[in-house]
Amino acid sequence: MGDKGVIDRRGFLAGGTGLAVAAGFGSAASAQEPAPAQAPAAPPAAKPLPAYVAWKDPETLIVHSNQTIETKRGAIGTSLVTDEDRLYIRNNVNPPPDSILADRDGWRVEIAGVREPRTLTVAELKGLGLATVATVLQCSGNGRKYFQDKLTGGQKISGTPWTVGAAGCVIWSGVPLKAVVEALGGADGRARFITGTGGEELPAGLKPKDVIVERSVPIANLDTVILAWEMNGKPISLAHGGPLRMIVPGYSGVNNIKYVKTVALTEQETDAKIQASSYRMHGVGEKGSPSQPSVWEQPVRSWITAPLEGAKAGRNQIVGVAFGGMNAVSRVEVSVDGGATWREAAFVGPDLGRFAWRAFVLPVDLPAGRHVLASRATDAKGNVQPEESEINGGGYSHNGWRGPALTVEVA
Amino acid sequence: MGDKGVIDRRGFLAGGTGLAVAAGFGSAASAQEPAPAQAPAAPPAAKPLPAYVAWKDPETLIVHSNQTIETKRGAIGTSLVTDEDRLYIRNNVNPPPDSILADRDGWRVEIAGVREPRTLTVAELKGLGLATVATVLQCSGNGRKYFQDKLTGGQKISGTPWTVGAAGCVIWSGVPLKAVVEALGGADGRARFITGTGGEELPAGLKPKDVIVERSVPIANLDTVILAWEMNGKPISLAHGGPLRMIVPGYSGVNNIKYVKTVALTEQETDAKIQASSYRMHGVGEKGSPSQPSVWEQPVRSWITAPLEGAKAGRNQIVGVAFGGMNAVSRVEVSVDGGATWREAAFVGPDLGRFAWRAFVLPVDLPAGRHVLASRATDAKGNVQPEESEINGGGYSHNGWRGPALTVEVA
Repeated sequence: MGDKGVIDRRGFLAGGTGLAVAAGFGSAASAQEPAPAQAPAAPPAAKPLPAYVAWKDPETLIVHSNQTIETKRGAIGTSLVTDEDRLYIRNNVNPPPDSILADRDGWRVEIAGVREPRTLTVAELKGLGLATVATVLQCSGNGRKYFQDKLTGGQKISGTPWTVGAAGCVIWSGVPLKAVVEALGGADGRARFITGTGGEELPAGLKPKDVIVERSVPIANLDTVILAWEMNGKPISLAHGGPLRMIVPGYSGVNNIKYVKTVALTEQETDAKIQASSYRMHGVGEKGSPSQPSVWEQPVRSWITAPLEGAKAGRNQIVGVAFGGMNAVSRVEVSVDGGATWREAAFVGPDLGRFAWRAFVLPVDLPAGRHVLASRATDAKGNVQPEESEINGGGYSHNGWRGPALTVEVA
Repeated sequence: MGDKGVIDRRGFLAGGTGLAVAAGFGSAASAQEPAPAQAPAAPPAAKPLPAYVAWKDPETLIVHSNQTIETKRGAIGTSLVTDEDRLYIRNNVNPPPDSILADRDGWRVEIAGVREPRTLTVAELKGLGLATVATVLQCSGNGRKYFQDKLTGGQKISGTPWTVGAAGCVIWSGVPLKAVVEALGGADGRARFITGTGGEELPAGLKPKDVIVERSVPIANLDTVILAWEMNGKPISLAHGGPLRMIVPGYSGVNNIKYVKTVALTEQETDAKIQASSYRMHGVGEKGSPSQPSVWEQPVRSWITAPLEGAKAGRNQIVGVAFGGMNAVSRVEVSVDGGATWREAAFVGPDLGRFAWRAFVLPVDLPAGRHVLASRATDAKGNVQPEESEINGGGYSHNGWRGPALTVEVA
């Protein structure tokens, strides 16, 4: 991993600069996000990876804390899938011991709120059906830093200052929850939500409801939710929710329950704190409550991943990723003048489905000097990224195009 | 990796058995390919991974030799992409030192047979365009074992006894070769082939033409060939051809030149041995020659990946992968009675394009006893897998459905 990391850093993440020297071009160029963006990113990058993800590639990641690890912008590729070696990490509670992976097919999940409730093993789930879906897995707070940079006076938004790297696109395989429910006689009673409970060991001395990872999503998702045991062609690692994870396509990360131990069809949302007051949309300084919108569906979003540095005058390929949350992304525009004018970019590569992201490219001739690069996506329902997202107290669901704009110095 | 490997083996590769015990079901069932198939696979599995791929997952691989490493059938997942940790390896010459990855963007490739021939760096290639394509990467000899098992008398087919694991499906990003050719003034003269040369260091004391990895493919592929620097979201590893690999979508592995150092548009095929006499379709015991068909386009193929063992009486999901080589795979049929009757399976997951494989599933109720499971794919042009492939001296391009059929004992 170490060697591979060094190679990644020198050849890929900072490749342009290396090339400029190697090819005998002029002075290396450099890029940065708007000045204030730089400061916080640097120090955390020095932190070592925690033991449970020691197998990840440190050169591609920014370690904010043991439970919050971000993919570097330059490590997001264009070949659509995000390798687990560089996929972001965000946990609300410490992961269980990896001994839970010793017998993956023996992992048990309780299915409740159905006419014939029972506990099923993963091996039994594998007999009930198979579905494979590509989804953008993204922390609800991805882009929070762009909100925090705009705070004034006594305003405060706590939480990890993610920029764009608390997101990835991965392919899951598992059983459709709908097939499981049907095998158990169908929903029992007035099911209005799908409530999943994680298998984390809860810290002692705290009220379980205050720390348990239990989320409810609308029953309408029964058509797309899967209980997954595989990610990107391999059994799901502990760090990403193995042996079994509840995937809610199009919904932000927190709704995709790791090491899921209970899935219930319920009439009410869970009253666990993580649902009742956390991950709610409210004003800065306000408290969260069940009356506020929950952080569920992801809005349309995009960002540029190259060039970050090493750009030289002449033809450049501006590339990035775009997704529409619950809807397919239908269009991406790119600006090289800070949003004054826009040109439509082209999608490249296969379409992995409406819940996945797509890579985009726009060839542009850039003269020497400073350029502000931005991307703006539109989804199949006509939703367009705004210039600025409306600020909210939790710093959730950022999708403005101005925040992740890049200022690039072209040599 | 070691820990993850153990988890894979116990929980995934042999998961069914683990489950049978964990869930208190009856005696564990077992599966095997037709008896003769077992023998050769076991011993090589014990060999350690060579240093240049020490980072791969040993529990998912069969090491035939340092240059021929096969993915275990049970390690082929349904989430479409094959992780580099378990992707097969086949080299004709030792890989170059990994120092060639120290400056990926500085890697130079000579482009010849164009009006303005030039040597370009990877950084310069990145400025010329971007394409992303999912392809089945498969050794020309994948399935050779099924030919070898049918040899009679003094017949001999040398080469690695691959079953189904010398193949994977990966997503590449790079520059379209067509864009590179156009940037250099277009083809010079009567170009009939695209000839790529690998960057391996040739062993001393041998005639270069006898060992150099240099292959020619028809110029018609100029519309789809890419020079790739990324695989599955990461810079291409040395083992899989980084920093730059020539990808010929739909063509067998040998045509996808690793560490490509020269790409030439040529009027004639190269006279290198690997093209002139190796990888040719000819009878058993005959010598290869340029007059014989070259091993280029991959034929339609499929195989079942589960259940391999642990199957129990009742509902089972029979799953596998299928692909059409140059054409999209349009249909997969599954038989549970050794080919006497067939039922159409359903494709699952996104369609990654005509050069990729698709996962398929068929739910079946299997009574206790022995069952012979087989799959048979049809491509968009109506080509159907035959029961047996016509035997050839090199053991190339196997695509019969009988060979990879599985005999499963259901408890």
